[in-house]
Amino acid sequence: MPDRHELHTMFYPKSVALVGASNSSVGSGATRFLEQLRRVGFPGDIFPVNPNLTEVQGLKAYPDVKSIPKPVDLVTVAVPASKVPEVLEDCIVAGVKNVHIYSSGFSETGEEEGRQLEVKITEIIQQSDLRVVGPNCMGIYVPTSKLVAWGTPPTGSGPIAFISQSGGHSEFFIRYAQGLGIHFSKMVSFGNACGLQVLDFLEYLADDPETRIITMYLEGIKDGGRVTQLIKTINRTKPVIVWKGGLTDSGSRAVASHTGSLSGEEKAWKAFFVQTGAIKVDSLEEIADVVMAFLHLPIPRGRRTLVLGGGGGNSVEMADICGREGLDVPPLSDTTRGELASFIRLAGNGIRNPLDVSVVQEDVDLLRRSIVVAVADPVIDLVIVDRHVGGNHHDDERYRKVNNFIIDFAIKNTYNKPLVVSMRAHDLTPGGAALGARLCGEFASAGVPAYLSQATATRALARFIKYHEFQAASKDGNW
Amino acid sequence: MPDRHELHTMFYPKSVALVGASNSSVGSGATRFLEQLRRVGFPGDIFPVNPNLTEVQGLKAYPDVKSIPKPVDLVTVAVPASKVPEVLEDCIVAGVKNVHIYSSGFSETGEEEGRQLEVKITEIIQQSDLRVVGPNCMGIYVPTSKLVAWGTPPTGSGPIAFISQSGGHSEFFIRYAQGLGIHFSKMVSFGNACGLQVLDFLEYLADDPETRIITMYLEGIKDGGRVTQLIKTINRTKPVIVWKGGLTDSGSRAVASHTGSLSGEEKAWKAFFVQTGAIKVDSLEEIADVVMAFLHLPIPRGRRTLVLGGGGGNSVEMADICGREGLDVPPLSDTTRGELASFIRLAGNGIRNPLDVSVVQEDVDLLRRSIVVAVADPVIDLVIVDRHVGGNHHDDERYRKVNNFIIDFAIKNTYNKPLVVSMRAHDLTPGGAALGARLCGEFASAGVPAYLSQATATRALARFIKYHEFQAASKDGNW
Repeated sequence: MPDRHELHTMFYPKSVALVGASNSSVGSGATRFLEQLRRVGFPGDIFPVNPNLTEVQGLKAYPDVKSIPKPVDLVTVAVPASKVPEVLEDCIVAGVKNVHIYSSGFSETGEEEGRQLEVKITEIIQQSDLRVVGPNCMGIYVPTSKLVAWGTPPTGSGPIAFISQSGGHSEFFIRYAQGLGIHFSKMVSFGNACGLQVLDFLEYLADDPETRIITMYLEGIKDGGRVTQLIKTINRTKPVIVWKGGLTDSGSRAVASHTGSLSGEEKAWKAFFVQTGAIKVDSLEEIADVVMAFLHLPIPRGRRTLVLGGGGGNSVEMADICGREGLDVPPLSDTTRGELASFIRLAGNGIRNPLDVSVVQEDVDLLRRSIVVAVADPVIDLVIVDRHVGGNHHDDERYRKVNNFIIDFAIKNTYNKPLVVSMRAHDLTPGGAALGARLCGEFASAGVPAYLSQATATRALARFIKYHEFQAASKDGNW
Repeated sequence: MPDRHELHTMFYPKSVALVGASNSSVGSGATRFLEQLRRVGFPGDIFPVNPNLTEVQGLKAYPDVKSIPKPVDLVTVAVPASKVPEVLEDCIVAGVKNVHIYSSGFSETGEEEGRQLEVKITEIIQQSDLRVVGPNCMGIYVPTSKLVAWGTPPTGSGPIAFISQSGGHSEFFIRYAQGLGIHFSKMVSFGNACGLQVLDFLEYLADDPETRIITMYLEGIKDGGRVTQLIKTINRTKPVIVWKGGLTDSGSRAVASHTGSLSGEEKAWKAFFVQTGAIKVDSLEEIADVVMAFLHLPIPRGRRTLVLGGGGGNSVEMADICGREGLDVPPLSDTTRGELASFIRLAGNGIRNPLDVSVVQEDVDLLRRSIVVAVADPVIDLVIVDRHVGGNHHDDERYRKVNNFIIDFAIKNTYNKPLVVSMRAHDLTPGGAALGARLCGEFASAGVPAYLSQATATRALARFIKYHEFQAASKDGNW
């Protein structure tokens, strides 16, 4: 196993070689990596490697890794699969330790040739002290070291790590998460995992001071017992959120075509989640949903939820969604209802809970009066504010006042009760959809978890609570 | 029970009275109803009723319903709850048969006064031959008769009926569904259901030649046994899609606050779905999702699904989603894979199924070649085309060519296999969201079921198939 310090040079390299970079305008992976590294201002040395060129994009090119005259902290390999073994041998000769193999064409093709090539490079790796990410992956993405050869250039760095067996997911996730003000400490796309494993990355991230929350997309893992034990430990201080791909038969076959992994049995994964308390999700969007809760919310005291929005049918729907996700929507206390009834008329409204007072969507004063009274009720642990978007609701001054108030109220959070905003476009117009996305980003970037549907809001809250219940039970020795 | 013919005058009235209409600019329900009826060009007589005015919006006003000199086919009552009994008595004296009570303030308030008023109007209704929709509801919406006093003005009429205990849901659904090219024959928002019941509306719609698919949002029903029997029968020829609100404890309490209904036991509703084969959904969006399938797709032969899109992790995700929804994603046959391999390179792509060839997102020729070969495979019953939106995908000519091809291919549907488009915004920008909404509307309006997520696309297909399996099993006498 690579020692921690050495893995550090992989995340914070002072120099990078890009094998396969060229001057082609429809460049291969390495060419695009080079372009992006320079665009984001990677401060270290960049060495293009190409036996047919002396210069690549204005930089001196080297025929092979061995010919580079300086130490290279990280080599990215983007050549046809059949050439990869040779590059690895060169790396060994050159004393390079950290290698990222971008190339695909190995066991994931399902063809004999690819399988044999994968056996070959695995042997090379095992007989050397190379630390290899991949093959068939995007590699490493670290905003603070400007090791950003792929993915959307970061608009900031943050406390979230993402370990992924899919490069596509990694690229999607950076773009999507940044729209919600979620920023990353480290991202690792590691594909077929012939060298470094989940376990290696986890050990590094467990001690990484830049990482507070660890998120993962996994297809198959080796050494399941040790991974389980390690995640159980890490999860106590750094929440671990896991999306496991290939849990169904169809998905499992797709995994074989994707990273050549054996995706393992559903039963084993069920046991994994029960034992570790890691948070199970089913998509990248769900990872982001839960991350927002961990980033912004105080520890919840219980599952009793205030739903504040409006619309009779809508209130039933939200209460049902809470019920399905295991959150309770208790009637507000008599005292609270008495206070609410002093300024809310009963016909056409509901003051039990959900608080069904449609006019709060446009009337900031009524919203303020209602929410202050209702959130203070001791029967309430959590708050979901339902914000209507599109339809009859116009993005005018009154509407924006309500949004600003919600942000302000949530950030101050006088009652120290988790509050999230759930919204849903009330039409299917491009304008409504755009406004929903914009508002979601605005709320979330201001530090208020915001969701494009009531279902996703509620599910994220429920998972957040379950995590804290698990940790509390573990501490009590009930686990 | 009202006879069918008489209920007909309620949906196709030649004259409407609006009790409570005024000249106020912040008008009550009746005032807004009047404005909208005139705006959409309701061709019959409109009689405003207001004891304090002689003219309402340029129309002669009457002090009460009795004073209207002509027959009135439908009276809408929008006065404070306490005045409603008196208006009903007037209707009886005037020989009016059809009444819609918009007013709220009855049992749904949970207050004694409202409960007593509801008992009182129920008695009046039972002792008369009034046919009453409501109270606490929006009433009836019929595009073909221009009885459109509320909701988004229709952009067309169509074969879908919607019976709803929520007016908010009805308004939302019209707006949302029209964005997907879904148009209505009849919509009924019937609130607390003191008069006409689900059973009455169902009996009418069963024989309504304008209605081909019946959709419902229900909170509580009376006479469950007969409703079950009737829906089982109707469902054989007109698919019945039911969203039941209040199935959880929290939701059930919210139902009491909304329409004062008893929402019934979860067990009884489970039995209802098992017996009738009605399609169970959990939201309006899901109703629309399933409706699109029924409107546009041929009867499926089985559950074996081709997923065509791109991205390794994305393909695993889609296969898992299919697996969770009970659809199989079988490997394509050797012959098909042989053909595909003749023009798709294996490194970086997958040709088993899902067909993971990212470049088809921008390359219409490769998409055409791939899809023609793959859809023809006899191991395939259904097709999900995954369309990427936003992120690195730009709405340029190449992109639009792909969209046009998908529509064209789906509409021709040479292989007579159901095909849907699933899309997902690859970012959270307002632009990406707007494009997704617009494309979804364009595909759907062209007759191709389109969905904003892979999960909703797959769920809709699964429910569509389950319906056909149920009907096939029933015919075989297995049921």
